Amino acid sequence: MRIKGFKSSAVAAGIKYTDRLDLGLIYSETPAVTAGVFTQNQVKAAPVLLDMERLKQGRSQAILVNSGCANACTGKEGMDAAMKTSSMVAAALEIPEELIQLASTGVIGDQLNVDAFSQNMDDLVGGLAESNFEKVAEAIMTTDTVTKTAFRKVRIGDKEVRLKGMAKGSGMIMPNMATMLAFVITDAQIAFYELNNALQEGVKRTFNRITVDGDTSTNDMVLVMANGMAGNSWIDQEDKKDLQAFQEALESILKELALKIVVDGEGATKTITIRVCGAKEDKEAEVMARTIANSCLVKTAFFGEDANWGRIIAAMGRSGIRFEPNRVDIAFGDVVLVENGVGQGVDAEEKAATLLKEKEIIVNIDLKDGHGCEEVYTCDLSVEYVKINADYRT
Amino acid sequence: MRIKGFKSSAVAAGIKYTDRLDLGLIYSETPAVTAGVFTQNQVKAAPVLLDMERLKQGRSQAILVNSGCANACTGKEGMDAAMKTSSMVAAALEIPEELIQLASTGVIGDQLNVDAFSQNMDDLVGGLAESNFEKVAEAIMTTDTVTKTAFRKVRIGDKEVRLKGMAKGSGMIMPNMATMLAFVITDAQIAFYELNNALQEGVKRTFNRITVDGDTSTNDMVLVMANGMAGNSWIDQEDKKDLQAFQEALESILKELALKIVVDGEGATKTITIRVCGAKEDKEAEVMARTIANSCLVKTAFFGEDANWGRIIAAMGRSGIRFEPNRVDIAFGDVVLVENGVGQGVDAEEKAATLLKEKEIIVNIDLKDGHGCEEVYTCDLSVEYVKINADYRT
Repeated sequence: MRIKGFKSSAVAAGIKYTDRLDLGLIYSETPAVTAGVFTQNQVKAAPVLLDMERLKQGRSQAILVNSGCANACTGKEGMDAAMKTSSMVAAALEIPEELIQLASTGVIGDQLNVDAFSQNMDDLVGGLAESNFEKVAEAIMTTDTVTKTAFRKVRIGDKEVRLKGMAKGSGMIMPNMATMLAFVITDAQIAFYELNNALQEGVKRTFNRITVDGDTSTNDMVLVMANGMAGNSWIDQEDKKDLQAFQEALESILKELALKIVVDGEGATKTITIRVCGAKEDKEAEVMARTIANSCLVKTAFFGEDANWGRIIAAMGRSGIRFEPNRVDIAFGDVVLVENGVGQGVDAEEKAATLLKEKEIIVNIDLKDGHGCEEVYTCDLSVEYVKINADYRT
Repeated sequence: MRIKGFKSSAVAAGIKYTDRLDLGLIYSETPAVTAGVFTQNQVKAAPVLLDMERLKQGRSQAILVNSGCANACTGKEGMDAAMKTSSMVAAALEIPEELIQLASTGVIGDQLNVDAFSQNMDDLVGGLAESNFEKVAEAIMTTDTVTKTAFRKVRIGDKEVRLKGMAKGSGMIMPNMATMLAFVITDAQIAFYELNNALQEGVKRTFNRITVDGDTSTNDMVLVMANGMAGNSWIDQEDKKDLQAFQEALESILKELALKIVVDGEGATKTITIRVCGAKEDKEAEVMARTIANSCLVKTAFFGEDANWGRIIAAMGRSGIRFEPNRVDIAFGDVVLVENGVGQGVDAEEKAATLLKEKEIIVNIDLKDGHGCEEVYTCDLSVEYVKINADYRT
């Protein structure tokens, strides 16, 4: 499904490996209102630093993205390399350099292979087409096993507005305000203030609720470009209904992409929703859910299909959130394993064991202490995760 | 090596498994000054709650310890069971119930098999002997692969004072103020205030600096019993030299036991010291070192013998501790991998790769921002860790 005015392209540039797509370009025929959310990791990759500076203007026209090299911890040489690739693509596209956004993903510490960019720039720009969005989604994969895209349409006034997104991510995933690479393009006509708000709010409830291994990358970013070509009436504070419709469509795309990252988590065999309710406030529910979601012992128990709720309650107890252990209920789906802090015996665990054979598991925790309620999405910790990460660079 | 006035005993009581030592007793002929440090997990096992209450008197005469069941999250029934076992052993030893300390380790949520205690109490008490300390160390093992004991002697005035300790622990290890099970017995004559201080200080720098998997148990405890039978002049504030000598001997035992837990960490193939220096203060260095030590990605890289410093700097960046990425140095042993935030290239990584084949690795990080310096001790994350914890209860 095409998004008016957007074209994409991807080539195998040999940045690290040969014969695989590793360099992608997303281009809008006209400058697009653009909002971004970037990693909160203090160590930020060169492209992240550059984009953050450029996005102060709230506009961009193209995203140049590579896998195979994160261009992080590369010092001045890395920043110079990023600037060179940005100049190159700006020249080829005949647009101002300031309208280029850069994104990189791959190993931290390696210097960027600028020659691979220059040798392939003509092919890359020459290949721009409306149908190549999926190819870019493929070019940004690292340990990902599948491409991750999502699509929505929403009616604004009498016009149909379309949104399309892609993401990559599989390991080093515990977004903090931002996550991994994700790009959303839309032909919506929307002001920067509203687009930015919609993105910030959406990311909070989607990408910032997933964790694969508790590690936050140096290169995380989510960009959304809106080029206005749908010709809809401006989405702004005037019409709350339109704004809400757009916000919901955007958040829905972000959530679909975020969950696709969890499903494709390194070595993952299951996706697990940790839902904590009855907390004093939402923030406390989130911290507790996240502590459980990051516990190696909880995650290996899920991999082993073992209804080991003792590990869940132990993780809750070290989460730093105050609660009354003797009031806690824990259920897997609707199978109650713990009531008022006490285990419900072998029967309940056997029922839960059946449920644990599923691919998707929901853990429901009730602290019975308030109305705070939040969900965090994670995956199990498998033998394969360790193998992937012990061998990643070899 | 005997500690005057202390006897031990262990039996195979069949608490969970048959034919393995699982019930132990440590006994002092006279009431001993006793200090304890207990888990900071909000969810505390029945024996932990009971011991904390009883230790307000600063004295005990026996420790009854079992493996195979943690007696945690067992509600009123679990507390009643704990009290029953305590009454039993007090009656058999003919000492007041209040002088019994209890400890349990094993699966969370199972009720304690009290019959196994009553049926074996005569054998347990009848078997008390000076030489059985190692047998108790064996009885408290769960996923441990080796027993963990340590011994020290120290001269106080004209007397030789002896200390002997044991610990168990292999997984669910990230002590917070206390850790796993560890018991130290000594014939030192020492006042409660000084003994307690020595323990608190010692634990802070030893057990509270190790992590296997970032999970804090519900049953952690360290107890030290001093029965005064060495007949040394009282260790108190009067003679700082004696106090310091005792403190050093105790801390040295605690550290040896703590490191033995890391070496025997579930599935561990290597022990890793993360040393962060140049932080604004010690506490910041500790938080950063702990974040690195708990990163799944860092730990799997060590398992893979991959000098992947990018994962270390990414973990530093999400630790919450402010630092200047462009000033950071990272070395494995004396091989400098990163200087002023920039990688030192393939040569350095190859040298580091050789070093990574060792069993013990020291990571030296310098933030160049102050005099704060701390170490945290951890192990790698292996395929075996996942297998052990996916299969623990089956």
